[in-house]
Amino acid sequence: MSDHRVAPVQPFEPPYYAVVFTSLRTEADEGYADTSDRMEELVTAVPGFLGIESARTPGGLGITVGYFRDVDAIKQWSGNAEHRTAQKRGRGEWYEKYVVHVAKVERSYGFERGE
Amino acid sequence: MSDHRVAPVQPFEPPYYAVVFTSLRTEADEGYADTSDRMEELVTAVPGFLGIESARTPGGLGITVGYFRDVDAIKQWSGNAEHRTAQKRGRGEWYEKYVVHVAKVERSYGFERGE
Repeated sequence: MSDHRVAPVQPFEPPYYAVVFTSLRTEADEGYADTSDRMEELVTAVPGFLGIESARTPGGLGITVGYFRDVDAIKQWSGNAEHRTAQKRGRGEWYEKYVVHVAKVERSYGFERGE
Repeated sequence: MSDHRVAPVQPFEPPYYAVVFTSLRTEADEGYADTSDRMEELVTAVPGFLGIESARTPGGLGITVGYFRDVDAIKQWSGNAEHRTAQKRGRGEWYEKYVVHVAKVERSYGFERGE
């Protein structure tokens, strides 16, 4: 797996897409970690997938951002059967609330200490 | 202050902008929380500011997403003198690494339990 939990996804050459998924969890935890790992494995295999990064404040908000080359890549991921099953379970069990923003990146840049 | 630490920002009517700021902190903590609070206070006053949300995995990645109505609102925030001073201090002290993606939201939706 990638080091997306400890390093930001790099800035790519625009245009590309960012899918921002912000969520509040329920108390239900059964199957969540396994499904989450499996979804990461699956999304990585989507043609046009660029990267994923995730952060969650304990007891608070979680933000996951997936980066894709174009709308077709997002459509392919949205239509993935195993992903759709997981989303359904997410609405039924794991999420109290979530919001998704699909956005086209126009500009990006980064900073690294010592550069 | 808003409840942005415990609730996702709502989906707005597109188009609008999302500025994704993903970061890794250094060990340096002096002044960080105060400056962070002050920046939130300032950004809220920018015409065209829509909302902000933040999550940080302890010891890991932090993701903050600011939402703005248009590029002009982002420019106004980027050009804010106090914000620029804080950014400079961030690069000098608080951040090991960060990446910024400026993206135009084309589509958004949400889910809430019990809806």
